Amino acid sequence: MASIQKFIGTDIEIAQAVYPEHALHINDVAKKAGIPEEYIEHYGKYKAKVDYNFLSKTSDKKDGKLILVTAISPTPAGEGKTTTTVGVSDGLSKIGKKVMVALREPSLGPVFGVKGGAAGGGWAQLIPMEDINLHFTGDFHAIGAANNLLAALIDNHIYQGNKLNIDPRKITWRRCVDMNDRQLRFIVDGLGGKANGTPREDGFDITVASEVMAILCLSSGIEDLKERLGRIIIGYTAKRSFDGKQSEELPVTAAQLKANGAMAALLKDALKPNLVQTLEGTPAFVHGGPFANIAHGCNSIMATKMALKCADYVVTEAGFGADLGAEKFIDIKCRYGGLIPSADLLVATVTPLK
Amino acid sequence: MASIQKFIGTDIEIAQAVYPEHALHINDVAKKAGIPEEYIEHYGKYKAKVDYNFLSKTSDKKDGKLILVTAISPTPAGEGKTTTTVGVSDGLSKIGKKVMVALREPSLGPVFGVKGGAAGGGWAQLIPMEDINLHFTGDFHAIGAANNLLAALIDNHIYQGNKLNIDPRKITWRRCVDMNDRQLRFIVDGLGGKANGTPREDGFDITVASEVMAILCLSSGIEDLKERLGRIIIGYTAKRSFDGKQSEELPVTAAQLKANGAMAALLKDALKPNLVQTLEGTPAFVHGGPFANIAHGCNSIMATKMALKCADYVVTEAGFGADLGAEKFIDIKCRYGGLIPSADLLVATVTPLK
Amino acid sequence: MASIQKFIGTDIEIAQAVYPEHALHINDVAKKAGIPEEYIEHYGKYKAKVDYNFLSKTSDKKDGKLILVTAISPTPAGEGKTTTTVGVSDGLSKIGKKVMVALREPSLGPVFGVKGGAAGGGWAQLIPMEDINLHFTGDFHAIGAANNLLAALIDNHIYQGNKLNIDPRKITWRRCVDMNDRQLRFIVDGLGGKANGTPREDGFDITVASEVMAILCLSSGIEDLKERLGRIIIGYTAKRSFDGKQSEELPVTAAQLKANGAMAALLKDALKPNLVQTLEGTPAFVHGGPFANIAHGCNSIMATKMALKCADYVVTEAGFGADLGAEKFIDIKCRYGGLIPSADLLVATVTPLK
Amino acid sequence: MASIQKFIGTDIEIAQAVYPEHALHINDVAKKAGIPEEYIEHYGKYKAKVDYNFLSKTSDKKDGKLILVTAISPTPAGEGKTTTTVGVSDGLSKIGKKVMVALREPSLGPVFGVKGGAAGGGWAQLIPMEDINLHFTGDFHAIGAANNLLAALIDNHIYQGNKLNIDPRKITWRRCVDMNDRQLRFIVDGLGGKANGTPREDGFDITVASEVMAILCLSSGIEDLKERLGRIIIGYTAKRSFDGKQSEELPVTAAQLKANGAMAALLKDALKPNLVQTLEGTPAFVHGGPFANIAHGCNSIMATKMALKCADYVVTEAGFGADLGAEKFIDIKCRYGGLIPSADLLVATVTPLK
Repeated sequence: MASIQKFIGTDIEIAQAVYPEHALHINDVAKKAGIPEEYIEHYGKYKAKVDYNFLSKTSDKKDGKLILVTAISPTPAGEGKTTTTVGVSDGLSKIGKKVMVALREPSLGPVFGVKGGAAGGGWAQLIPMEDINLHFTGDFHAIGAANNLLAALIDNHIYQGNKLNIDPRKITWRRCVDMNDRQLRFIVDGLGGKANGTPREDGFDITVASEVMAILCLSSGIEDLKERLGRIIIGYTAKRSFDGKQSEELPVTAAQLKANGAMAALLKDALKPNLVQTLEGTPAFVHGGPFANIAHGCNSIMATKMALKCADYVVTEAGFGADLGAEKFIDIKCRYGGLIPSADLLVATVTPLK
Repeated sequence: MASIQKFIGTDIEIAQAVYPEHALHINDVAKKAGIPEEYIEHYGKYKAKVDYNFLSKTSDKKDGKLILVTAISPTPAGEGKTTTTVGVSDGLSKIGKKVMVALREPSLGPVFGVKGGAAGGGWAQLIPMEDINLHFTGDFHAIGAANNLLAALIDNHIYQGNKLNIDPRKITWRRCVDMNDRQLRFIVDGLGGKANGTPREDGFDITVASEVMAILCLSSGIEDLKERLGRIIIGYTAKRSFDGKQSEELPVTAAQLKANGAMAALLKDALKPNLVQTLEGTPAFVHGGPFANIAHGCNSIMATKMALKCADYVVTEAGFGADLGAEKFIDIKCRYGGLIPSADLLVATVTPLK
Repeated sequence: MASIQKFIGTDIEIAQAVYPEHALHINDVAKKAGIPEEYIEHYGKYKAKVDYNFLSKTSDKKDGKLILVTAISPTPAGEGKTTTTVGVSDGLSKIGKKVMVALREPSLGPVFGVKGGAAGGGWAQLIPMEDINLHFTGDFHAIGAANNLLAALIDNHIYQGNKLNIDPRKITWRRCVDMNDRQLRFIVDGLGGKANGTPREDGFDITVASEVMAILCLSSGIEDLKERLGRIIIGYTAKRSFDGKQSEELPVTAAQLKANGAMAALLKDALKPNLVQTLEGTPAFVHGGPFANIAHGCNSIMATKMALKCADYVVTEAGFGADLGAEKFIDIKCRYGGLIPSADLLVATVTPLK
Repeated sequence: MASIQKFIGTDIEIAQAVYPEHALHINDVAKKAGIPEEYIEHYGKYKAKVDYNFLSKTSDKKDGKLILVTAISPTPAGEGKTTTTVGVSDGLSKIGKKVMVALREPSLGPVFGVKGGAAGGGWAQLIPMEDINLHFTGDFHAIGAANNLLAALIDNHIYQGNKLNIDPRKITWRRCVDMNDRQLRFIVDGLGGKANGTPREDGFDITVASEVMAILCLSSGIEDLKERLGRIIIGYTAKRSFDGKQSEELPVTAAQLKANGAMAALLKDALKPNLVQTLEGTPAFVHGGPFANIAHGCNSIMATKMALKCADYVVTEAGFGADLGAEKFIDIKCRYGGLIPSADLLVATVTPLK
């Protein structure tokens, strides 16, 4: 990208000036990050998934330093953190440091809504921006499919006689769709007579709000993922047993429904970190995207750990403001992943100060 | 009414010329019909209910002759049969015969709709017309309450643990309302979370279509009523038992829910035939009103039998055309009630011939 | 009733010892209260409705004194106030005062539930207790029918093209049923395709909670009733007009739907106060029964005013405790009806003190 | 694959004996098919999408011969056609012909159900079987997203004031999910009060049944796709206009909602044919999968046309039996695509003969 004269323009104009002509082939990005080709699965020329076995192969390698970007206070547009993360990384790269970005994947939902993409801005963007903002490598679709497979298995279990005595009114597991669709927030499903399920109140969340998303981002491997999925509580048993007698109200898990194996199969590829680059060619993992308000709000542990094996400095981000996102980053992600940030960068723009 | 000069006018103008000034007090109507005052329960001055014990007291009395009025073919307005029934009765009365009318109560529903009242027309009307067309003596409200009490008990049984293993998707008992309300035909109820019932597909019929209406009209007394109500099938058990094993699909009755006692209590007064008069002062029982399309379509057996004890000629009517209503009258009402019509009057108007 | 030896027994045993053998004929009760027979409409031998024209005929007569019975604090069973009201009335009667009771009608709903009847207890009961607790003179059925007619007219208006631009999501008028039926609290109706209404969220309240009940109890006559019914707000217009442009959100009334005339027709008889008696033969008006929590919680203004014309002392009651029911009695009923209580009786039982 | 000794085993055992060790890299498959690397977008090592610009570049090249495989009668398991298609192709390849397979993508739905995969059987299979049967290259997810984006835009249009006067009860466009989920067949959505859409009856189909799937398979390029998507009829206007007056019932299209541009953007990659191989290394396009019962039931026109540029013989398949699938293939796909099959292969197994 060295040859491009930087100019002032919209995010999309800038991105198109670089991509695809002046972008590095993903093989070259991988090489920069020191990831051998055998661990690379291509998704076209500019995206790749990295096999998680790469992590075990590099277990004896020393980790780089982790730099956390957070902000003083969240704003509706959320501006600042991603752009800073990318900009700082490119800057470190410019002064000769081996650096890697580790960010979240954006949701398709808000893309068609107000917020716009979530791949940085100006000359501090990730590419291929459009792909990242649309289907990318299909992770969110896989998470949605796993989420909805569990929902279908719950209802099928009830339909087939409900051996576990699940109370249809106490199912807490909701369906999901990768879209802002207010029409689906509260529904009644299972209508159409006895051949078509059991009527109950239900609803759809946006995929990023699925517990499956949070679990994927905290998992250390496929077995850990499967085990965590099995522990999902989908609802509760009826307070009265089948013969009408009082009984205990007990939680029911995905493992009891034998759903976690098939869910993990659907998530096998989604678990692999996605490799892309910044406009200036800095390698970037963009993987996982749990909401910060209802979940822990940062990219996957697996991607962050992999990045720490690939670079001396890994710049990552926590959602919302420091009081929520950074706290969750420290309390949840760092504890589960054994991570210790070496520096925190606090973005302070004028908007939240007002 | 002898003093009134007959004139040509609308039904309502004619009715108001007679009622209330020139109408007989209901005590005088009862006297004409030979019903002792002790069996009379007043509903104002022009309506009364007759205690069904009157029937057992007159069991050794000879029955009068039963004349059935039917029609060649039903028309949307249903015109002809009731007017003929009243007219023929008044005519027989005029030539000195002891005669009594036995007709159905009209539904409040169609009253506010297209069809208008159902109390005859011209100078061959029943009075008090407006009362008969509105709440009358409350029979339909009582039937609606009994119908809906059963529905509430079904849902409460399921809510309380569902000992009978009723499949909520196979409940055939619907709620009812005495109104043409298309909005209530197909509903989902039991929404609002676990404190508010169990979600299921349900709906409301018009009260005259309730099985309770048909049962009331076929019952020979309060004990028979209670027993018949108990045999109502409200739905079916689940094909799988509570432990998820295959089981037989069995019908569930109102008696199993112990609902029929309370239902009969609500219907105790509704079971008593209502006494009114024609414009010319002929005594008339107006009692019960099942639809002819889905039920048997004629007034109560109890009222018809009582009328046969009170008069030499009882003129009654069967709904719809001869092919449907008269057939049901003969096959159902006559068999259950041990009735044999002595004559059939076939109304033939031009409309159905076209 | 003078000849009956009082004994200790259940409410029902005591009531049955008096009623029907030793009860006064309703004509004699009316005579005691000074109500001429021409204003009496019989409902059997022990209940009557009193024509409200009686009120205008006695307008120059001096009012008796109004005694209000209230309680320190409400209890779940609500015990005390009605029994006190009846007892005090019978006592005043015993010492030769001309006295009349004015109480609310009980709801059918709780009757089949926990609470039991609401016609006093012990030797201080109203009769015929069973009738009062069931359909009585059909007032609640009429109120339910009027309430549900309005609901049907709203939905029919929307179905027919929605000229008033009613927002189906902002309809505040709910349907009602005279029963505790949790299954109907929250429903979706208008299902079954385009021939069957417009899908929307709806629900049923118990009839006593209907605004129609409150209106009936505050009305001074049929015209006032009709006018008040017309002012009912059933919901609001859409914020956007039909062409998608922003418009004002305006309330929609029953009068705009031309519903109040038909509603008043259905309530014509329900508006007339019901005359019954205590076990000791004291005349009692039992009329109207709005809940005290959501409405004003006392019997109809019309019955109270009529009672004040019939007796030197009228004992009446306000629902719940003094802080709620008595306050509403003073602030709402007395203001609207121009009533001034001469004495307040505060029932203090041990239960609420605990 | 020449070195592998063929053996008798389950489909999965056979597939695993070849894949991944003995499978050709997708670059080598492309080379066999004569597709230059610049048109290849990798999805890992064994799958690729082929840029549709390749088609315009080869427009002057002569087409190969098209061989259609159909069957005498469909069976529940549908066995035979795909296996024959693959087998015949491998056979032609073995005797030195330049041959290519063109097949449909299987639905994720039935995979978790009874039917099992749809990638052939025995030694006549497509690889990577597991990928093909799961997310593959994300085409079905993209189709589902496009389908559901349109649904969300319909409901959002109504929510925002409904300028087009769409009748919510006459929306024919349903949502979809790539799963057999009976619970979602009939639902009521838009519940939860006025902030959450407009209540209406709705439902989910399986993704392969979406009209978007059929359209994608008939489109000749991105512009044609966009134009076809715009012609989708999503429902009808209300018979009465907003002011309650009678108006015409008109169809409403996706173009009127300006939905087709965004839908096409979501489908941009899904439109590109997917390149894989048979167990014996014969190149195969596996692209598009409309159901044969409700749609035309064959793979995309674009894949078939591309295959005809890459090989002398293209073996393809039509769903269900000859009477349905082959007829639709000839009447719909061939007409739209300008295709003429040179030979038909009729699979006749014993099962359907019984």
